Amino acid sequence: MTPLILLSNDDGVYAKGLRELIDMLRPLGNLFVVAPDKARSGSACSLSSEIPVKADLLETSEGLTVYACSGTPVDCVKLALDQLLASRPDLIVGGINHGNNATINVHYSGTLGVALEGALQGIPSVAFSLCDRDPDADFEPLRPYVQRITNQALRQTLPYGSCLNVNFPPDGNYRGLRVARMAYSRWQDEFQPCIHPGGSRYFWLAGECVNDEPDETDTDSWALDHQYVAVTPIKIDVTDYNLKEALADWDL
Amino acid sequence: MTPLILLSNDDGVYAKGLRELIDMLRPLGNLFVVAPDKARSGSACSLSSEIPVKADLLETSEGLTVYACSGTPVDCVKLALDQLLASRPDLIVGGINHGNNATINVHYSGTLGVALEGALQGIPSVAFSLCDRDPDADFEPLRPYVQRITNQALRQTLPYGSCLNVNFPPDGNYRGLRVARMAYSRWQDEFQPCIHPGGSRYFWLAGECVNDEPDETDTDSWALDHQYVAVTPIKIDVTDYNLKEALADWDL
Repeated sequence: MTPLILLSNDDGVYAKGLRELIDMLRPLGNLFVVAPDKARSGSACSLSSEIPVKADLLETSEGLTVYACSGTPVDCVKLALDQLLASRPDLIVGGINHGNNATINVHYSGTLGVALEGALQGIPSVAFSLCDRDPDADFEPLRPYVQRITNQALRQTLPYGSCLNVNFPPDGNYRGLRVARMAYSRWQDEFQPCIHPGGSRYFWLAGECVNDEPDETDTDSWALDHQYVAVTPIKIDVTDYNLKEALADWDL
Repeated sequence: MTPLILLSNDDGVYAKGLRELIDMLRPLGNLFVVAPDKARSGSACSLSSEIPVKADLLETSEGLTVYACSGTPVDCVKLALDQLLASRPDLIVGGINHGNNATINVHYSGTLGVALEGALQGIPSVAFSLCDRDPDADFEPLRPYVQRITNQALRQTLPYGSCLNVNFPPDGNYRGLRVARMAYSRWQDEFQPCIHPGGSRYFWLAGECVNDEPDETDTDSWALDHQYVAVTPIKIDVTDYNLKEALADWDL
């Protein structure tokens, strides 16, 4: 049986990263794409609860169907699974994102939203991101990695409630691949104030993400800084079990 | 020193849940509120990367400042910390949400977005939610719990990278409080198709959240179903360490 792979992203259905992903994965299965009709960077796992969503068929050919959806990346996955797809996909793939989704950015990323929604639905899922925000970035060096990891995700068993977060350094000369944990990092100087022509203040999100543990060699951030492709396994159970024990001493 | 407490929510600055929270917490500290200017349910940790944000001062009096912000709940927290507040708050509180944020809803909730952003910034944080979506819900039974938990969060040590997710059953007759883990659950029949007067199809997110492990007594879902207030400790490190080991056997 030819595998059925559901694709989405957060840069929108016209982004180069998604088009390149489609090209890389066509040899691996039948592709069903439901992606946002415009850029939705920083969507996290957000969903449309206040407004309805719709989806327009853009393209359909042998082994490839493409929808543009008015909602968030998570809306795209939910709508595909609940309404648009005739059968359950074997795999869900998010990306390829234009920009770094390693470390704590997993919490803000719509590309991770795609993979987390897959994990929440019990479907093996992978998110791919290239640490380069250029809309015309070169994705070609990623091809063998994307194909091998996708193949493995189709063939191996991903436990229920987990997915893979794969990030590629910006320069295509990779030293290999490292399985890594999420580094603790933090954003600094996040907003740039500007003055509207009418006199009021507004703010652009900007800032810099700083690795809090640069000397730890087992993190995704370290791997990326040292020219390795970083594969970080992510789980949906966010319970802090140590704190759960410690709360017995609180006066709650 | 009087504690400084930053408040936000995802139902918007005019929601009853936030107004009640302000009333409950005024005796505990100086309150600084930056909340979305409209309802932002389901915002998760999303942020505004494509559009700028602004904030308007709504109210300022002894011990209370209130801003309405055009952005998401996470934008509100980031803007408060980076631009609006003169000093770092002692605590960040999200809520009180109109609706259930237990189980996997932690991933979709903007109220949890507030608390997770606090945890990401290294500031003790708590999210409060009442499992009742009525805009005029009765929050009064929550008061002693909200005040005691907030007091404890100010006095005890929350580890870096963790926060508390507190959910209240809809009926105010509580049997007490239970520290719980996140239950695995899933949304079913998520979208309701509708026909636009012009003939096109659109979809409303709806559905039902079903507990996948109803017999497990240590979950937040079990606690809520049995009239207990559920306190779930949440952490920002989403690495799946077991899977990290298992990936050594994959052909990556």
